[in-house]
Amino acid sequence: MAKEFSTRAENYSQWYNDLVIKADLAENSAVRGCMVIKPYGFAIWEKMRDVLDGMFKDTGHSNAYFPLFIPKSFFNKEAAHVEGFAKECAVVTHYRLKNSEDGKDIVVDENARLEEELIVRPTSETIIWDTYRNWIQSYRDLPILVNQWANVVRWEMRTRLFLRTAEFLWQEGHTAHATKEEAIAETKQMLDVYADFAENWMALPVMKGTKSPNERFAGAVETYCIESLMQDGKALQAGTSHFLGQNFAKAFDVKFLNQQNQQEYVWATSWGVSTRLMGALIMAHSDDNGLVLPPKLAPTQVAIVPIFKSKEQLEKISEKAVAIKKELQAKGIKVKYDDRDTYKPGWKFSEYEFKGVPVRLAIGPRDLENGTIEVARRDTLEKEIYQQSDIANKVEHLLDKIQNNLYQRAFSFREDKTFKADTWEEFRDIVENKGGFVYAHWDGTPETEQKIKDETKATIRLIPLDDKREEGKCIYTGKPSERRVVFARAY
Amino acid sequence: MAKEFSTRAENYSQWYNDLVIKADLAENSAVRGCMVIKPYGFAIWEKMRDVLDGMFKDTGHSNAYFPLFIPKSFFNKEAAHVEGFAKECAVVTHYRLKNSEDGKDIVVDENARLEEELIVRPTSETIIWDTYRNWIQSYRDLPILVNQWANVVRWEMRTRLFLRTAEFLWQEGHTAHATKEEAIAETKQMLDVYADFAENWMALPVMKGTKSPNERFAGAVETYCIESLMQDGKALQAGTSHFLGQNFAKAFDVKFLNQQNQQEYVWATSWGVSTRLMGALIMAHSDDNGLVLPPKLAPTQVAIVPIFKSKEQLEKISEKAVAIKKELQAKGIKVKYDDRDTYKPGWKFSEYEFKGVPVRLAIGPRDLENGTIEVARRDTLEKEIYQQSDIANKVEHLLDKIQNNLYQRAFSFREDKTFKADTWEEFRDIVENKGGFVYAHWDGTPETEQKIKDETKATIRLIPLDDKREEGKCIYTGKPSERRVVFARAY
Repeated sequence: MAKEFSTRAENYSQWYNDLVIKADLAENSAVRGCMVIKPYGFAIWEKMRDVLDGMFKDTGHSNAYFPLFIPKSFFNKEAAHVEGFAKECAVVTHYRLKNSEDGKDIVVDENARLEEELIVRPTSETIIWDTYRNWIQSYRDLPILVNQWANVVRWEMRTRLFLRTAEFLWQEGHTAHATKEEAIAETKQMLDVYADFAENWMALPVMKGTKSPNERFAGAVETYCIESLMQDGKALQAGTSHFLGQNFAKAFDVKFLNQQNQQEYVWATSWGVSTRLMGALIMAHSDDNGLVLPPKLAPTQVAIVPIFKSKEQLEKISEKAVAIKKELQAKGIKVKYDDRDTYKPGWKFSEYEFKGVPVRLAIGPRDLENGTIEVARRDTLEKEIYQQSDIANKVEHLLDKIQNNLYQRAFSFREDKTFKADTWEEFRDIVENKGGFVYAHWDGTPETEQKIKDETKATIRLIPLDDKREEGKCIYTGKPSERRVVFARAY
Repeated sequence: MAKEFSTRAENYSQWYNDLVIKADLAENSAVRGCMVIKPYGFAIWEKMRDVLDGMFKDTGHSNAYFPLFIPKSFFNKEAAHVEGFAKECAVVTHYRLKNSEDGKDIVVDENARLEEELIVRPTSETIIWDTYRNWIQSYRDLPILVNQWANVVRWEMRTRLFLRTAEFLWQEGHTAHATKEEAIAETKQMLDVYADFAENWMALPVMKGTKSPNERFAGAVETYCIESLMQDGKALQAGTSHFLGQNFAKAFDVKFLNQQNQQEYVWATSWGVSTRLMGALIMAHSDDNGLVLPPKLAPTQVAIVPIFKSKEQLEKISEKAVAIKKELQAKGIKVKYDDRDTYKPGWKFSEYEFKGVPVRLAIGPRDLENGTIEVARRDTLEKEIYQQSDIANKVEHLLDKIQNNLYQRAFSFREDKTFKADTWEEFRDIVENKGGFVYAHWDGTPETEQKIKDETKATIRLIPLDDKREEGKCIYTGKPSERRVVFARAY
């Protein structure tokens, strides 16, 4: 199996696209901007979804489901929200087709025009807050801690598999609270959940912070985010958690009777991650030999390949291989024993390498004699001969080691690509020639942020949460600044 | 908590609707025909989904995801399919909104009209077979055993929560095979999976059979179905599995090189169940006191309610209750210990009764003294005093008993409501006055089926799989018939 594809150095963007397609993760569909997520890619997403879902439930949230369609007028109710979301969207105008007059075609039935157009949800704050109005009367009805897993549509002009598609899958949490403090605590809690997931499951180091007003969610008072760094030095926003204040409660008239018997508007949060995380996962760890997956999210964690020339050899090897498979499975490890005789071992080796299977075991006739097994790890491409005894413990340990190594590698990479700039020349040089994150002073105005973006394509990825104050001067205007913010070019 | 609602005898349809809303399962949304599935309802659906998903995986299927939108022209490619599905649907015609001239409103941007309209998927055969064309070259690429969990939209005029909604959630399996025999075997296997799930998880007895041509899926060669009986004597189709022959392969030109090195069209199946199962679950078991859930699908299987007058009493009772809760949880039982002091025990009793929690335990001060506990079962509404010793085993056993009892009760009900009719008068009398399933002879023509439907609203629910031949005369036309089929009025 020749998986000819670009290297990262040659063409990073092409490398990514080739990888997604040739590793059977996803492909473009017949519908512009919409992707097909293939079984192998979906198995990874499914695992991510299940882990996140468990984390949401552990923090007290329940799932629910709200309509795909949102009446057009709902978007008009929150002034900032309509600007951010209602423009590039899929608009349903009719509810029937009919046969054309010549009978050869089907056409839109103009008699079946909707009185009010429906928008395919780009995000669900509006329809959900319209619903919450009926769920909330008193403080006893609060908090509402609800999440939904859903598809959403944003009509993107330039799309890239997983990273930016017209339709994508995501979860959106929408919570309602009696106090501002509780809502802010929820917003921060969910940011921590996302960071925990990114670092401990995806092996992806992230920075936490808030967004500048330019980058804030349309309708939020404050947007918190986690940002990660890809191998081409560009940043990728991996998740956001929004404190919405009372904006949506006011827009949809959602009040509650507080403990002092007074009517008050409800406080809100929303938070989401999407199939975009698949893009981050792929880009963060993979190499010129194909996909590299962190063991905790790999659909197949260990592949066992028998090396044989005859049926008799295969039978003997299989006996041992199946026993090892069972030992590994008893530890909860996902194992595939590939005894197909339609493909050669070499083909299988490169297949599992390309698909990012963390550990490959190979057993041949000599291994049977010697009680050995060949162990190859995907992250370093190293091979080693192990004794078969206690193999399950050894492999379990190796999987942990690989998980940690991927995190450490990504962490070191990010450290090496994180800079400070104190002058405009330094800043430009880093952004254009080195990439990565740049800590720099900024005068705090949207105008300056916009100008920096226009000139360098770098944006403020986040204002760090650590709140380290430091006197300085804006790299662009020279005006006084109280802290550094983090710039980068971004996906 | 007074949950005033209609009885089944008074108004079955109103009873159902009240139940769905007052038990917090679902409600109508601001979008016509689209429902909101509330957290309690979604928790049941989630459990159903997870169990089914496990069964699909155990039979070798993987999940994937295909686009929400389907180009209009795709529907035209399969002649029967377009008639069945392309007419009542949500049509996306534009991809942008803009501010109105007076700036007060947002309106559809007529410059952003799609070249070809997109249909929100009513079912995904067309887009999936368009995709499979690129996945399949040779017999080695077969079978493809893929499922997706998704939302679909059919523009229904008269909607009812869960039973018939414009948008609903479902799974749709789409498989591709090298031979007709293999495809038929797959179709039957998935019917068996559905029947197994209905009977052993939902406690819902089902009949298996094939559909008459009138009721067949648009584009199928043969539709297999499971049919269940609701308490009002109406049938409900709980799942379908379709043998699609080569219809979609021909429509989308999907060929493969077989082992004899010849090009051949691929054989197809599709199969699905939806949130409609929630309607079946609710209607099959519930009573005039509210929801009744089979223990295997209940989000909360056991509720523990403390009976106390003072804080001191509550503390002592809680010690025991928490210990019992842990014992139950150790057995994998979902338990809720409700120690809220904002609601009285009586309120809690009726709340859990209304929400269908299978077993309720109550512990008061006297129980502490006597080492006893009050156990109430939701299915029979019986109460009994148990000794606390070995309580987890006893409750586990009781949950099994309730699960079996619900199945048996529904089974007996169906037996009592299953009739044979040999004359038109008998048939009409049963359909109009008794309800239920009627085994009757039919001359095999769509015309007769249609006339029977026009006169009695009864349709052929299925042609039994058992293939019992019996000479007879069509109840409507008197023409010869070789077997009985099963009629009923249906949801």
